[in-house]
Amino acid sequence: MLTLSSDFGSPYPAAMKGVALQSTDARLVDVAHDFPRQDVRAAAFWLREVLPYFPPAVHLVVVDPGVGTDRAAVVLRAGKHAIVAPDNGVAVPAARALDEDVEVFEIEVEDPASSTFHGRDVFAPAAADVHERGVERFHEYAGYEPTSDHETVSFPTPDFEGDAVVGEVLVVDGFGNAITNVPGRVLDDRFGGDVVVNGQPAPVERTYANVDAGQRLVTVGSHGNVELAANRGRGDDAFGVATRSRVALEW
Amino acid sequence: MLTLSSDFGSPYPAAMKGVALQSTDARLVDVAHDFPRQDVRAAAFWLREVLPYFPPAVHLVVVDPGVGTDRAAVVLRAGKHAIVAPDNGVAVPAARALDEDVEVFEIEVEDPASSTFHGRDVFAPAAADVHERGVERFHEYAGYEPTSDHETVSFPTPDFEGDAVVGEVLVVDGFGNAITNVPGRVLDDRFGGDVVVNGQPAPVERTYANVDAGQRLVTVGSHGNVELAANRGRGDDAFGVATRSRVALEW
Amino acid sequence: MLTLSSDFGSPYPAAMKGVALQSTDARLVDVAHDFPRQDVRAAAFWLREVLPYFPPAVHLVVVDPGVGTDRAAVVLRAGKHAIVAPDNGVAVPAARALDEDVEVFEIEVEDPASSTFHGRDVFAPAAADVHERGVERFHEYAGYEPTSDHETVSFPTPDFEGDAVVGEVLVVDGFGNAITNVPGRVLDDRFGGDVVVNGQPAPVERTYANVDAGQRLVTVGSHGNVELAANRGRGDDAFGVATRSRVALEW
Repeated sequence: MLTLSSDFGSPYPAAMKGVALQSTDARLVDVAHDFPRQDVRAAAFWLREVLPYFPPAVHLVVVDPGVGTDRAAVVLRAGKHAIVAPDNGVAVPAARALDEDVEVFEIEVEDPASSTFHGRDVFAPAAADVHERGVERFHEYAGYEPTSDHETVSFPTPDFEGDAVVGEVLVVDGFGNAITNVPGRVLDDRFGGDVVVNGQPAPVERTYANVDAGQRLVTVGSHGNVELAANRGRGDDAFGVATRSRVALEW
Repeated sequence: MLTLSSDFGSPYPAAMKGVALQSTDARLVDVAHDFPRQDVRAAAFWLREVLPYFPPAVHLVVVDPGVGTDRAAVVLRAGKHAIVAPDNGVAVPAARALDEDVEVFEIEVEDPASSTFHGRDVFAPAAADVHERGVERFHEYAGYEPTSDHETVSFPTPDFEGDAVVGEVLVVDGFGNAITNVPGRVLDDRFGGDVVVNGQPAPVERTYANVDAGQRLVTVGSHGNVELAANRGRGDDAFGVATRSRVALEW
Repeated sequence: MLTLSSDFGSPYPAAMKGVALQSTDARLVDVAHDFPRQDVRAAAFWLREVLPYFPPAVHLVVVDPGVGTDRAAVVLRAGKHAIVAPDNGVAVPAARALDEDVEVFEIEVEDPASSTFHGRDVFAPAAADVHERGVERFHEYAGYEPTSDHETVSFPTPDFEGDAVVGEVLVVDGFGNAITNVPGRVLDDRFGGDVVVNGQPAPVERTYANVDAGQRLVTVGSHGNVELAANRGRGDDAFGVATRSRVALEW
């Protein structure tokens, strides 16, 4: 199984699929091709949330603002999974969520056909190759060099200060839910009550439908983080926040 | 074969696919993940139009404004097809289009991992389970209880009044075609002529290209309903209508 | 393998897939369903760029502003590939890129179920049929007539005038890169320098990251054409161009 993730929109992912299918019969599964453009941190968040739900697979990930520079291409091996990605850290949180032990291999890249579409010319062939050789054995072949020198992405840590915590919005999903970096456990005893968000009170509820249509709420999303939402509406608009906005919660 | 439909956008459907692939090797086919958000009636319309074109399959459908409430999860069996969906009626018109006899089973749901993402935690595992056990036999296993008490969705009926019919727009497709609830047969003898739409005349044509680019027309869409369209343009803009707009046709 | 391309958006492509799967077990791969609406030339460009990366396949292409008129339906055979499409030229550049010898067959079409959705009622069944009969042999069966009378699409040729070339924007991709009809070789000796675009100088660079975030650049895209871009921004906005805009390059 080979999954594909990128910020490419359309139709570029199809070229990656065509290239991969030249050398593998693997099942292809799209994770997403509409990650926020060149936002490595947002992609890292989504990959960490989604990839662990897959059975063993090779995951092709291309969110690559440094395409054409000398940033390396890597394979991250995590348990029975492998992630093929640019060495900008985008795949590291997902790899760590898949397995506590992550091994990193640098891919030896020959001059690619283009300097702007490594997804097609570098990463898709490499992902197909790792799939065909096998996640357990690909590194025994030429072209893969173990390395401990690689980039990573860290999510910011919220600040706890007495009866408050200050975090930020990591991503806004397509529904408009603003997903923060604040762990959901801060709301453990507060469901059915209120919390003050950036100075204004809002109800804390387990499900959207517990408030009226259009009303805002604070909840814990499926990712386990505090989420600013609105029932049948957009949480980002209702709370006036966007990606990277500061979110102060007080009680 | 397992089809997937939702209003989830991206990347949430990928988590459903990952979960399903943990327990089935079925072919996965996306129907759509961009149904109008939480619009159960619109999704019900599209599913009724699309699912009958598929060979026997299990269809996973998640348009679920009541997620986290006590609404049930159901399997609708219709001939050699099964639809796994929330019990809000979204799948009923499609099931009836697939087979005149529809049996409904309530799914026994254990506490899911999340209260906001039942697509991943409840419906995807159930759909994979129905697929693996088989549409003919899944209900012989624990966890599926026949029921006659379930929700449904009805499309509004147009009002016929002498030389006029008053209906409404059910959905607007991506081209901007406004699809009404008026049966296409009202136009049977009128092709090549005119009909009055909300007080203004418009030509009745079998194909878009029969009018000049940018010009509006009334036609019968592939779904068999009266459709307000524009050649190489948007019918909703040309007629000033949107989903749920009133549409009066006179001749 | 069966690829699918259209300007249908969603959920119409799913009906085509359902119909195809009634008669083939082929792997289905989406190329794109968001080609600019009814822009035959833009679709022709993208298909030429993407289809050659695929292994032998049948390609279903439906960008069809003339649906319901008497335009023919054709199969273009190019090497081990076949493209099933309306006879409006949309698939001709891709076919020629796949193989220098292209044979064209007209599909005998019985009265379809609808006059507005030939993708579902004509092209999908035909593509599945070509796949099942085989690219090498489908034409030996009834319903496929060799023809030399078919439409084509030509891309405009840029005008070279001394130290200048005047072309136009063929398509704008999802990143906002404006892809012109000017061959990349005109920039061969100019990387690291400047070129004058519509009267204003801009740097010529091999990769986006060679200029600061938000800055514009001229580059050669993965398709080999001159492209107007911006690092981590939209080239179309930065250069004030759109599809079919005139682009004059001087040095």
